[in-house]
Amino acid sequence: MKYPKSLLLILEQLKKFPGVGQKSAERFAFAMLNWDERHLKKFGETISHLKDNIKLCNKCGCFTEQGLCSICEDATRATKLLCIVASPKDVLTIESTATYHGLYHVLGGLISPLHGKGPEIIDLEKIQQKIDAHQIEEVIVALDSTVEGDATLLYLKKHLHLDNCKLSKLAFGLPVGSSLDYIDASTLSQALNGRNPF
Amino acid sequence: MKYPKSLLLILEQLKKFPGVGQKSAERFAFAMLNWDERHLKKFGETISHLKDNIKLCNKCGCFTEQGLCSICEDATRATKLLCIVASPKDVLTIESTATYHGLYHVLGGLISPLHGKGPEIIDLEKIQQKIDAHQIEEVIVALDSTVEGDATLLYLKKHLHLDNCKLSKLAFGLPVGSSLDYIDASTLSQALNGRNPF
Repeated sequence: MKYPKSLLLILEQLKKFPGVGQKSAERFAFAMLNWDERHLKKFGETISHLKDNIKLCNKCGCFTEQGLCSICEDATRATKLLCIVASPKDVLTIESTATYHGLYHVLGGLISPLHGKGPEIIDLEKIQQKIDAHQIEEVIVALDSTVEGDATLLYLKKHLHLDNCKLSKLAFGLPVGSSLDYIDASTLSQALNGRNPF
Repeated sequence: MKYPKSLLLILEQLKKFPGVGQKSAERFAFAMLNWDERHLKKFGETISHLKDNIKLCNKCGCFTEQGLCSICEDATRATKLLCIVASPKDVLTIESTATYHGLYHVLGGLISPLHGKGPEIIDLEKIQQKIDAHQIEEVIVALDSTVEGDATLLYLKKHLHLDNCKLSKLAFGLPVGSSLDYIDASTLSQALNGRNPF
């Protein structure tokens, strides 16, 4: 016996989710078959219209539903701090820490020549304008700790004019709650170099 | 910053999938935001119309797209064998083994008084009719090895009239590829009791 066509179709589509293979896709599909019709229709419609309601903020590139995002519209935020991240998702991740209260700039990607992404994906002019217009005092570059992230960080350091402005990057070190037994030598070495007085 | 409303909505809905929490739901939602518009619309529509195209076979209760399922319509199948399973999904699982070529009956659930499901959920008459009409020679009960599965198995054994018909259940034993170190005592005891000459 073969799977009904619409089941095969949904399985193919579910397998496009990150980390979802045949087994997980089957579990999801059979779960959906147990949902009531109304809920299923609503779920389908939310997905169909997902992008209709989510735009990118004109100013920082973060997710928004109209015009400027809630961060750019928030007058209480520190406007002398600028955090540069790779994707809108990173803004949400950093916001969830409630540690940073400045502005953002979303690059939209990292320099990765192997994937055909050269330095032209970085809108240097826009970042520079933002730094000058807000008289930014510190630019925090919060990128992945990968070759692509490092390349982008170096590119930004080289090409931005930061006369009265500090440039900083995220600290390397032990993840909170980690055990030394499981830390790789490279991270441990960075944690030693970046040791803090206590 | 808060998540845009449509993102919050899709996260809530994705978390209804089995085994999906906040983190996985976020990964799925952000993956969908990277899909192109056309693909997203198609996915949404497939979900909205999932149940429109999947019915249950009038005869066995398995998934079908119209009228009888492909198993009930298949004239080459052994009609003297009947396999009783709990859900349509189990039919697909058993079919994937390519070991069984008889008919099926889907119960649609197991007896579970704790969840308000008494013996009335079992359509004994329909099963008995099928056994008599096809002169079934063996009924294989393939249910979960749980309290509910065992209760249902006992109920079927007690109430079906199986004069010229064998009743069997799935074998207990070691899963293929398993190591004795990881087998629980109860399974091992069943595997010993059910040992085969070699």
